[in-house]
Amino acid sequence: MTSIAMIEAAAERLAPVVRRTPLLSSDWIDEIAGRRVFVKAECLQHTGSFKFRGAWSCLSSLDAGLRARGVLAYSSGNHAQGVARAARIFGVPAVIIMPRDAPALKIANTRAMGAEVVLYDRATESREEIGATISAERGLTLVRPYDDAQVIAGQGTAGLEIAEQAAEAGVTAADVLVCCGGGGLTSGIAVALADRAPGLRVRPCEPEGFDDATRSLAAGKRLANPALSGSICDAILTPSPGEITFPLLARHCGPGLAVSDEEALTAVALAWSRMKLVLEPGGAVALAAALFHGDKIEGDSVIAVASGGNVDAEVFRRALDHAPN
Amino acid sequence: MTSIAMIEAAAERLAPVVRRTPLLSSDWIDEIAGRRVFVKAECLQHTGSFKFRGAWSCLSSLDAGLRARGVLAYSSGNHAQGVARAARIFGVPAVIIMPRDAPALKIANTRAMGAEVVLYDRATESREEIGATISAERGLTLVRPYDDAQVIAGQGTAGLEIAEQAAEAGVTAADVLVCCGGGGLTSGIAVALADRAPGLRVRPCEPEGFDDATRSLAAGKRLANPALSGSICDAILTPSPGEITFPLLARHCGPGLAVSDEEALTAVALAWSRMKLVLEPGGAVALAAALFHGDKIEGDSVIAVASGGNVDAEVFRRALDHAPN
Repeated sequence: MTSIAMIEAAAERLAPVVRRTPLLSSDWIDEIAGRRVFVKAECLQHTGSFKFRGAWSCLSSLDAGLRARGVLAYSSGNHAQGVARAARIFGVPAVIIMPRDAPALKIANTRAMGAEVVLYDRATESREEIGATISAERGLTLVRPYDDAQVIAGQGTAGLEIAEQAAEAGVTAADVLVCCGGGGLTSGIAVALADRAPGLRVRPCEPEGFDDATRSLAAGKRLANPALSGSICDAILTPSPGEITFPLLARHCGPGLAVSDEEALTAVALAWSRMKLVLEPGGAVALAAALFHGDKIEGDSVIAVASGGNVDAEVFRRALDHAPN
Repeated sequence: MTSIAMIEAAAERLAPVVRRTPLLSSDWIDEIAGRRVFVKAECLQHTGSFKFRGAWSCLSSLDAGLRARGVLAYSSGNHAQGVARAARIFGVPAVIIMPRDAPALKIANTRAMGAEVVLYDRATESREEIGATISAERGLTLVRPYDDAQVIAGQGTAGLEIAEQAAEAGVTAADVLVCCGGGGLTSGIAVALADRAPGLRVRPCEPEGFDDATRSLAAGKRLANPALSGSICDAILTPSPGEITFPLLARHCGPGLAVSDEEALTAVALAWSRMKLVLEPGGAVALAAALFHGDKIEGDSVIAVASGGNVDAEVFRRALDHAPN
């Protein structure tokens, strides 16, 4: 299970390659939210999301001989980019298994980052079978998107930074809102803050209808979402909290919050207009919760993690319809 | 004339209120440019542009009694916001004189920042006459957008940060591309770097057809632009280099660079896609020069200042048409 010591060790391994992302704020955002809002801008991380932290943590913790054979990931999104970039820096092969109907730009981008992309047909093929066959043949190590102690430790390094940056800003007690899919980022930050800044309480933020973490925390057991698609916040739609992440969430987190797609798009528009940050909808749910669900938040200040900014132009245009004018 | 000592003094006054903006990079941008590109993200500065630095420097250098009477600025853009925010923090009145046909959002935003907005008719009224009348009645101090030694000193604090951040990144010799209107930012950074990092050479970047600084440097005297409008890079369209800024530019800067509106819009799109930064076209001309005029740039690395991100949704939509797909 991921401990503060593992997160500290990951932070040492990440130091030469990771970007310490800024903690930003805006008078305009504060005014809408009715309290001070600090945004941890992980969209400015290499590859445009926090995922590079966990990928680097995982790859850098592997035995060198094993790592040299290469790594494998299932993803069409942020995790794929994080793994591909980490593998490229290490100079080891990365195989990314992506659905054949993934956006052409995502496939091209992943290839351009040096990864080998293997496409599969969602309707007729199993990515796990394809991955297992390739892994067995080539001795690749699977890098899981969240249910891996070293991946969680890598994401937790963002929590170490939040603890330091909040202290610099004079914030010692606040809710820390985190965009939550499988819970890797949320649980990693929660473990870090429980040790370094116990006055900062992590709360997972999710899209309405896909609030598995929120319901699971309330029920005290892992519950699943009824569907796997149907929100614009595609980056954080996962079946349920992870086996490894959920116990950490249950131990450390406050109640979850859920936002609508419209609220997420409006948060994207406000981050664009008022903070000059590009967010994807799934990376804006925590900011949306800070902006539009303030009645469920405690304290004079709140910290929202903006977890990613890899968004298509079409979706971004929709968000711009929500910009102030 | 602005000296390094004035910039250092301004930096001390700015420290409690200014944001130290990050120096960012992207593998994708490097690949297009054919060298390492570092982007000084002044779009993340308070008010969305570097202008807050100069405004704060000017207001904080005023005699307290004079400052308490208030300040005045002519601007419908970034300078207005910088002055308004600085005045609000000091708790002193700010009068901003804006054309009646300025975008409603800009007028509303300036008012929302606590400034008193006085509108005038471009066709029938003189803003200088209106400003002179109000100033005389109320004892307001005019804050010039660039031709003021303390304003230049404030903008120069960005140069101190660039010197430190470039050294941290191991860059000791490079061209530093700066979006140039009247030359306040460009000359301030140039003075700072001449002292702190003489291997970093500042070069003004401008829109094609509005390359007064470039032509003036080549001619050794201040030359004017043939027009005052006609580029999408509205934030940096000025009649000519300033009386105070030009001698500094002439002493310290390398040759200027000019980019087309299409190149500026493409740079906006690439900053959105690859760096998760929101830039306005005028704030993207330096990045555009790095991306598309590399043949005129020396060295393995280049630093581009992204000077602002206050852009309308309509213009941003145009830029998104230039995004990779």
